[in-house]
Amino acid sequence: MYATVLYGAGDVRFEDVPDPIIQQPTDAIIRVTAACVCGSDLWPWRGIQDYGQPMPMGHEYCGVVEEVGSAVTSIRPGQFVIGSFFASDNTCPHCRSGYQSSCQNREFVGGAQAPLLRVPMADGTLVATPETPGADLIPSLLAVSDVMGTGWFAADAAQVRPGVTAVVVGDGAVGLLAVLSARLMGAERIIAMSRHPARQAIARQFGATDIVDARGEEGVAIIRDMTKGIGADSVLECVGTQQSMDQAIKAVRPGGYTSFVGVPHGVQLRGEELFFAHAHLHGGPAPVRRYLPDLIGKVWDKAINPGLVFDLDLPLSQVADAYRAMDERRAIKAILRP
Amino acid sequence: MYATVLYGAGDVRFEDVPDPIIQQPTDAIIRVTAACVCGSDLWPWRGIQDYGQPMPMGHEYCGVVEEVGSAVTSIRPGQFVIGSFFASDNTCPHCRSGYQSSCQNREFVGGAQAPLLRVPMADGTLVATPETPGADLIPSLLAVSDVMGTGWFAADAAQVRPGVTAVVVGDGAVGLLAVLSARLMGAERIIAMSRHPARQAIARQFGATDIVDARGEEGVAIIRDMTKGIGADSVLECVGTQQSMDQAIKAVRPGGYTSFVGVPHGVQLRGEELFFAHAHLHGGPAPVRRYLPDLIGKVWDKAINPGLVFDLDLPLSQVADAYRAMDERRAIKAILRP
Repeated sequence: MYATVLYGAGDVRFEDVPDPIIQQPTDAIIRVTAACVCGSDLWPWRGIQDYGQPMPMGHEYCGVVEEVGSAVTSIRPGQFVIGSFFASDNTCPHCRSGYQSSCQNREFVGGAQAPLLRVPMADGTLVATPETPGADLIPSLLAVSDVMGTGWFAADAAQVRPGVTAVVVGDGAVGLLAVLSARLMGAERIIAMSRHPARQAIARQFGATDIVDARGEEGVAIIRDMTKGIGADSVLECVGTQQSMDQAIKAVRPGGYTSFVGVPHGVQLRGEELFFAHAHLHGGPAPVRRYLPDLIGKVWDKAINPGLVFDLDLPLSQVADAYRAMDERRAIKAILRP
Repeated sequence: MYATVLYGAGDVRFEDVPDPIIQQPTDAIIRVTAACVCGSDLWPWRGIQDYGQPMPMGHEYCGVVEEVGSAVTSIRPGQFVIGSFFASDNTCPHCRSGYQSSCQNREFVGGAQAPLLRVPMADGTLVATPETPGADLIPSLLAVSDVMGTGWFAADAAQVRPGVTAVVVGDGAVGLLAVLSARLMGAERIIAMSRHPARQAIARQFGATDIVDARGEEGVAIIRDMTKGIGADSVLECVGTQQSMDQAIKAVRPGGYTSFVGVPHGVQLRGEELFFAHAHLHGGPAPVRRYLPDLIGKVWDKAINPGLVFDLDLPLSQVADAYRAMDERRAIKAILRP
C-alpha cells in the first residue's frame, strides 16, 4: 500500500510500504475511511522532536474492520470503528479508573495516514458505531478519535461546570473543540484566545462568548479585567508551549482549574509560582477511550459537529500538502481520504 | 515587650520592641498564650530566603483578645481566639470560594513569637473557642493555627477519600498531621515516608499503616511495589524541595492526586513529565481559615490531638534554642510560652 512516512524535518513522503498484518491475536486491521494530520505531528515534522528511523505517521483514524486476530471477541469484520491514538486493554487498573491513555499495556498507534492500519488490543481500543455512517458523519467521527476527545478532556480536567467562566488558550483544532466541550458542559462565559479571524469565527460558532486576541502578560491582564480581577474558574491550555502554560496558570483564579492537553515542549513550571497561583492543575494525553462511547453518540445524534474543524479535505496522496498547510496555519486541520 | 526578631542567618534575638497597637479599626491585639516555630521560619533563619530588614518572627498563635479596633464586630476582648498566618477579610470572592490564604486583601501575620500580636481584619481572621480552654488543649489549638490546617489541606487537596492509599512525603509537623488528616478522611492505607524513628512512632500513632524509610527513586520504587505497580491514589507532599516534589509526582497513579503544601524553594517541574504522569496537582498556602471552625471543634471534642507534634516546650525567652533544635532536627516542633 501507499502510506505516509516521515524521513526528516519537512520531509514527509507518500510511499509504498508493506501492508500491515495481524501480529498478535488481539490485533485488528482496519481499512481507513479517513485519517488526518495532528498538531502533534508537526513537532517531528519541524524537526523539534526526535523520532529515530523513518516513522509511519498518523494516529487519528476511523474505518471498517477488515480482519481480526483470533483472540478478538467484541470487534467484528465489517464494523465501522473509531479508536484512540493510544491502544489500551481497557481492563487494567489505569483503564478502569478512566485513564486508558496511561494503560499499563498501552501502545501508540502509528501509521494511520494510510489505507490500512493495524490496531493493537482491538477489543479494548476500538468502539463501533451503531451502523455504517453516512458520508456526512465521517469528519465528525474522525474528530472524535483525537481532537474532540482531547478538547473534551481539556474541559473535563478543568472542571467546567454550569455557570463557570472558562478561558481556552489556543485556537488549533483542539482549542476550538475545547470551546465546544466547555459549552456542552454548561460554561456561562467562554473566552477564546485567538488572533486568527477564521478561527475566531469557528470558536464563536462552537459557543465562545468572547474573543481575546492578545497573548502573554497582555492577554492575562485582559482576562483579569474581564473577570473583575478574580481570574477564570477554568482555563483550558491547548497548545503546550511555555508561553501558553504561563498564560493559563496566571489567568486562573485561586482554587480554579487549569488543564493542559497539548504535549509540553520544553515547558518548565516554577514551583513557587504554581504554589501561590493556588490553581488545580491536571493534564496529560487525553483518555479519549473513556469518552468515545459518549462522543460517538453525540455525533451520531447530530448533537455536535466537531468535523467543522476540518477546513482542508485532501486525498491521502497529497498528505505532504496537508502538513505544509497546517504548519503555515493556512489550514486548521486536514482530513485525508485514502 | 520582649519579642523575637531575626537579624540574619542563625541570628534570631529576643529583644525589647514597642508593643503593637491598633493601626486600623479592623485590627485586634491579642495576648499570645502560645506561639511556635514553623518549618518555614527556618528558611530565612538559614539564610536561604531574603527578608530585608530585621524581621519580627512567628505566624502561628492563639491567645486572648486584649483590644479591638472600632470596626470589629464579631470578636470581643476576653475571647480566646485562633487565627491563620494570612489575615483575610473572609468576604472577598477568593475567601468565599474557600481560598482565604489568597484573599484579595490578605496580609501576612508576622511577629507572633511575642507576648502581644496585632492581627489585621480580626473579624475575618480570628475564630473564637466556645470558652477559655484548659491548659491541656493549648498545644492542639495552637497546632490548628497552621500545621494542622496545612496537613488537613494536604489531605483535602490530594482528595483523600475512604478506601484510598495515601502517601505522605515529609515527616515534619505538617507531614505528621497530614497523616492524621488522611486517617480522619478515611484513607485505608497511609504510607509515611520517614527515616526518623521518633517521627515514625508519631506517624504510626496518627494512623500511618506503613513506613518507608527510603527517598528519591528508591522510595518511589518501593511505593510502586507496595501498590502493585499502580501508584498511590493520593500523595501529600509536605516538604517543598525538588526531591520531595519529584518523589510525590512519580509516586502517584495516573489520575491520582498530588498535593503540595510546603513553600517550594527552587523547585522546577518539567511539563512533559507532569503531562505523562497524568497526575492532578494542587497546592499552595493552606487556606487554614476555611478549616478553623471544624478543626477547633475536633480539638475541643478531643477527637484529635495534633498538639502531639510539640516535643519541645520552652519559655519564649529561649526562642533561639527552639530554632536551633528544629534546624538540627532534634525537635519536631517547639511550642513557646510568653
